[in-house]
Amino acid sequence: MHSLIGSVFMKELANDILLKKGDSAVFNIGKSKLAFTTDSYVVKPIFFPGGDIGSLAVHGTVNDLAVCGAKPLYISLAIIMEEGFGAKDLSKIVMSIKKAAGSSGVKVVTGDTKVVERGSCDKIFINTSGVGEIYYPGLSADKIKTGDAVIVSGPIGDHAISVISKREGISFGTKVKSDSASLLRLIRKALGSSREIRFMRDPTRGGLATTLNEITSDRSFGIALEESQIPVSEGVREACELLGFDPLYLACEGRAVIVVSAKDTGKVLRAVKSDRFGRGAAIVGRVTGEYKGKVYINTRSGGKRLVDMLSGEQLPRIC
Amino acid sequence: MHSLIGSVFMKELANDILLKKGDSAVFNIGKSKLAFTTDSYVVKPIFFPGGDIGSLAVHGTVNDLAVCGAKPLYISLAIIMEEGFGAKDLSKIVMSIKKAAGSSGVKVVTGDTKVVERGSCDKIFINTSGVGEIYYPGLSADKIKTGDAVIVSGPIGDHAISVISKREGISFGTKVKSDSASLLRLIRKALGSSREIRFMRDPTRGGLATTLNEITSDRSFGIALEESQIPVSEGVREACELLGFDPLYLACEGRAVIVVSAKDTGKVLRAVKSDRFGRGAAIVGRVTGEYKGKVYINTRSGGKRLVDMLSGEQLPRIC
Repeated sequence: MHSLIGSVFMKELANDILLKKGDSAVFNIGKSKLAFTTDSYVVKPIFFPGGDIGSLAVHGTVNDLAVCGAKPLYISLAIIMEEGFGAKDLSKIVMSIKKAAGSSGVKVVTGDTKVVERGSCDKIFINTSGVGEIYYPGLSADKIKTGDAVIVSGPIGDHAISVISKREGISFGTKVKSDSASLLRLIRKALGSSREIRFMRDPTRGGLATTLNEITSDRSFGIALEESQIPVSEGVREACELLGFDPLYLACEGRAVIVVSAKDTGKVLRAVKSDRFGRGAAIVGRVTGEYKGKVYINTRSGGKRLVDMLSGEQLPRIC
Repeated sequence: MHSLIGSVFMKELANDILLKKGDSAVFNIGKSKLAFTTDSYVVKPIFFPGGDIGSLAVHGTVNDLAVCGAKPLYISLAIIMEEGFGAKDLSKIVMSIKKAAGSSGVKVVTGDTKVVERGSCDKIFINTSGVGEIYYPGLSADKIKTGDAVIVSGPIGDHAISVISKREGISFGTKVKSDSASLLRLIRKALGSSREIRFMRDPTRGGLATTLNEITSDRSFGIALEESQIPVSEGVREACELLGFDPLYLACEGRAVIVVSAKDTGKVLRAVKSDRFGRGAAIVGRVTGEYKGKVYINTRSGGKRLVDMLSGEQLPRIC
């Protein structure tokens, strides 16, 4: 259904900026190069280990701007809630938004609230849109070259597992907390360390596998992942075994995928690791001239397999 | 509940831009003066005489930018829909968005879609945010002076009545169509005709009465309306009599309230009337030194009464 909608909207509303399919739209107004993005959050449950719908909404929009090389400046906040939604929960969410916005240095400058009858929405939905100013122009998957490295800024899948386990009331031996966080400082450090970063994205819906497939799709290179190098936390590993998930497809909400030249890989990795949210960063793969348009993985057991787009349904209401 | 939420958010997230409470936030990036706004649309039913949730969402955001003296440039589109929402309805809405955006000269440059389980949202909710560039800076209720005129660009309340009558399955002698429209051209004509326009707003939620009360609240002037001059269509009048509504409180989605100097009133009224959506424009009141902070109305019958903020609940899900 997602892809159906995506294609209907993309086709009918097509324009040069929309068709770039970035995490943010990038355009000039006057002499300023701006980034603009939007996301709605329908996560269920609204409170989960490591975050809530409020902090998630702020981090998500801040990160979508940051990975485009922009300094996030202003965000909007639009709330849809059902009648009778608890004042205490609302207050917790607002405080969480305040904290997340404060620590990301963005101002909530405009907003909207709509209250619908009980049963017409599930508790509360939040939309945040954001505007930022580009300070590192030119990031684009089109810039990627054979030999570039693929860095992931930390363990993958913690967000999805924290939400799913809370929703389903499942607990694992190791508690999993969402990775939801503002990537602003981490990305500033990374971009400050090299002029040869080609492209960044936060692997949210569909996880690392989907993000990398979107990068390679229709392009003249492939990506080879090294399974042994991909950071996965103990808890996520346990959960995936128990529930039959593949961590490559699980959403992160505080991780960045960074593609950088071979030459600058070490510098960028060190810069990322110097940030508190980047300690678990790793080089997980390389851009190759083989397997054009595809992502494959060299498995721990010495094999090689294709990492495809997710064929079935994605986990619903993770963000 | 709205005001409770408003005050919680306003208090906790306060900053200089948010506290101006404009229809859009206004700020500078580089040398550009920008306007930024957001609104979620939860109108029920999603199709109504004169429009649908798609055109409404585009017009609403375009108008919020336009009344701040901005040229709307780019909008975002975020959709939340329930599983199983009809492809035919979705397609109608997309085509309606396309048409509204095209006729307003704005591009949809970024978007998001979330699908929730059936019953977790009522059909479809749409958020549009927008970015525009200010070409007529300085519009502000703080600029309003005693003696200024209050112009309304056309009959009030048609949007609210069209939605309510469709929702409740009521028909009146005269069919009422929503006034939902892009005010872009009308406002450009108005602003082009005078340098003495002080302030503009589109009287959406809470209607003309609420908009004017927001203007006068805590300020050192009042507004005197002339009941006989306020344009109300035949159908809205009938509906109000039947249903016990006061047209002053009914939402419009294609009307502008314009406050202008006494000297330039005639010029601006002519400019507004020259637009196809402004043919029914009228001077409906004056800014006075009396009744500071209040709105009152000289009634048809020769009396005078206070036009207060709406004390009860507003009509739900009109926009």
